[in-house]
Amino acid sequence: MDDPVAFVKVKKKSHCIRALSLFLVACAYLCGSILSMKKVGILGGGQLGRMIMQAAANYPVETYLMENDPACPAAHLCHHFIKGDITNFDDVYQFGKGLDAVTIEIETVNEDALAKLESEGVNVYPRANTLRIIKNKIKQKQFYKDNEIPTADFVITQTLADLQQHASFLPAVHKLAEGGYDGRGVQVIRTKEDLAKGFDAPGILEKMVIIEKEISQIIAVNEKGETSLFPPVDMVFDPNLNLLHYQLSPATLPDKIFWKVEAIAMKLVRALKSPGLFAVEFFVTKDGEVFVNETAPRVHNSGHHTIEGNYCSQFDMLLRIMLSYPPGNTEPILPAAIVNLLGEKEHNGPAQYDGLDEVLQMDNVFVHIYGKRETKPGRKMGHVTILSKEKQELIHKARHITQVLKVRSNK
Amino acid sequence: MDDPVAFVKVKKKSHCIRALSLFLVACAYLCGSILSMKKVGILGGGQLGRMIMQAAANYPVETYLMENDPACPAAHLCHHFIKGDITNFDDVYQFGKGLDAVTIEIETVNEDALAKLESEGVNVYPRANTLRIIKNKIKQKQFYKDNEIPTADFVITQTLADLQQHASFLPAVHKLAEGGYDGRGVQVIRTKEDLAKGFDAPGILEKMVIIEKEISQIIAVNEKGETSLFPPVDMVFDPNLNLLHYQLSPATLPDKIFWKVEAIAMKLVRALKSPGLFAVEFFVTKDGEVFVNETAPRVHNSGHHTIEGNYCSQFDMLLRIMLSYPPGNTEPILPAAIVNLLGEKEHNGPAQYDGLDEVLQMDNVFVHIYGKRETKPGRKMGHVTILSKEKQELIHKARHITQVLKVRSNK
Repeated sequence: MDDPVAFVKVKKKSHCIRALSLFLVACAYLCGSILSMKKVGILGGGQLGRMIMQAAANYPVETYLMENDPACPAAHLCHHFIKGDITNFDDVYQFGKGLDAVTIEIETVNEDALAKLESEGVNVYPRANTLRIIKNKIKQKQFYKDNEIPTADFVITQTLADLQQHASFLPAVHKLAEGGYDGRGVQVIRTKEDLAKGFDAPGILEKMVIIEKEISQIIAVNEKGETSLFPPVDMVFDPNLNLLHYQLSPATLPDKIFWKVEAIAMKLVRALKSPGLFAVEFFVTKDGEVFVNETAPRVHNSGHHTIEGNYCSQFDMLLRIMLSYPPGNTEPILPAAIVNLLGEKEHNGPAQYDGLDEVLQMDNVFVHIYGKRETKPGRKMGHVTILSKEKQELIHKARHITQVLKVRSNK
Repeated sequence: MDDPVAFVKVKKKSHCIRALSLFLVACAYLCGSILSMKKVGILGGGQLGRMIMQAAANYPVETYLMENDPACPAAHLCHHFIKGDITNFDDVYQFGKGLDAVTIEIETVNEDALAKLESEGVNVYPRANTLRIIKNKIKQKQFYKDNEIPTADFVITQTLADLQQHASFLPAVHKLAEGGYDGRGVQVIRTKEDLAKGFDAPGILEKMVIIEKEISQIIAVNEKGETSLFPPVDMVFDPNLNLLHYQLSPATLPDKIFWKVEAIAMKLVRALKSPGLFAVEFFVTKDGEVFVNETAPRVHNSGHHTIEGNYCSQFDMLLRIMLSYPPGNTEPILPAAIVNLLGEKEHNGPAQYDGLDEVLQMDNVFVHIYGKRETKPGRKMGHVTILSKEKQELIHKARHITQVLKVRSNK
């Protein structure tokens, strides 16, 4: 290792001297080689990284994580924390170059650095070119169209003036090509008057689809091209708030829809030509039409129930792919529901979890708090998984949990 | 925090200067207080600590760990690693004094330091006095006798000369009072000639019991004194090697034996007067008699299947007790088996795991490798849990795994 990561700061040591950091990381890289344990890196240290690290502790693997915030949810669970900017070419390249395999937990990672790592023999999940397609909504939609993957009609817009030309396309949804996340960068445009609310930046205007339900399909692809499909999940929205209320696994679908979803997901990942783990979100219409809404090339919120609910979790599956192990069994052990725990409106600051005792008193409920120090309105602070043979019990408990468990600021 | 831990070395930084360490740990303790997240400490960093840390990542908690070896299995999974000697009074006291709750993962912890921490308001699991009874086999056996807890007959021996006086008590087993672990410190004395093999140190000579089977009962006690019983586990031994072959959960027991086991376990933990999590190992004779073999005041190998096999795992239960949450549901989700993965004979050095691919190809099998850098003959290197509704499938897979999965040295 002649050029170890040059900007390392090991956790809780943000003022450690640079020379010492260099020496220690060099030792760590060297030590990993001696032990012939695979070295796996994750770009991004949020809750997804945290749960990957929890699963990684079951395997003989040396873990590396890069993130700007040393207090991020995953930082304390890796062997080697490296402070760095995942959008920066040099940071990502230096991080990955000594590793066997690298993955992402957010799409904003610098894909040129991933491409260079790939060309030098690092196994990158997903492949850089796949990330390039997915992280830009214009490219992603164009990819669906080019590969005959059913998706809602759309037009590409470059500017707000551009958008104004498409009044005849309404009602529609305007989506920023890049930088949108968790509902940001999306604007509903119902009428001509709404057009001014659109983005003055490259994006897509997508025809509004009358949705019967939304479902998510997690699909894994290993280096041999073998695919593993997790049972799809029903995403149940609150009709008043237009917010995800809870998710149910497995989804209740007519066989015909189920087969369509599986076939489209398989076709999609084959066209993406990348190993890794993907979440494909679908719209299902009243007429039984199925449209791909969007794809995430990584572990996904809609797969968190697999930790307890399925024999192999999405996190375990990703690690199996990265460590060249055989794929796991995606079958459910029991039906499951997930409730996301979001920061309460108007609460900013150090987080406190009200109602946790009541939730932990409920049988067969699994709490995952992500350890974020600060809550913000709508911020994903944790999730709760419920297991039960009875769908009605899942729904009842999920609704109850959304009512009693609240993240507030203790300020 | 006027006197933070004074001998801290944060991981991968064994040469970090003392002043910096002091400053950073002071910051960490202070930061924990501001966030009003509970600070939980674990003494010992082996696989039990590792699995406690994996479970802790589901809760809003700041984790501390003390161990002499910065490369131990649990070191990289805590927020704050402190290098120290768990048998040393000062090290243990300094480690625990700023924390809300402290637990152990091995009995050798300095109990006087725990007693002082207890007297100063730290919640210690198990209580120091309970640890004092259990860590010394003479005291442990005397405790059973004093509390009318059925256990095999025994005599106390102080020296080898002492032992020689008890030929009429044979066949029996001589056990060192302190320092025995994982089969060490135990000597079978069948005949008068064997007496010379005994220990020339305080111990007990325990009458040999003709065992029909051995079972283990995990039982948890919270601060309110509420007990939670996990279903007992059958420990199946290899009759040729006299080694644990695999474990089955739940144990197959006649109701009468089951009730006896539960009643004895409850009586035992009440007499121990300590919250915490305990594993009580029992001998069951052909006549249906039940004897306590020994008690561990901590999470235990015989409870590892609860991670996947039960709604609440033993690790989750311990954390619930330490964080003052309600107890979890101990019921099994599915019957389970555990196979321990021990270092092969004559293999010493960097570990490699042969047969891992074949095991990971089997459905509903969960691999836990503890990440120990070096293997030694008989060393616990990992375990594998199998889930199935069919007991015969559990047994078949368990036997197969013991045959194919081997830890060897790659030297």
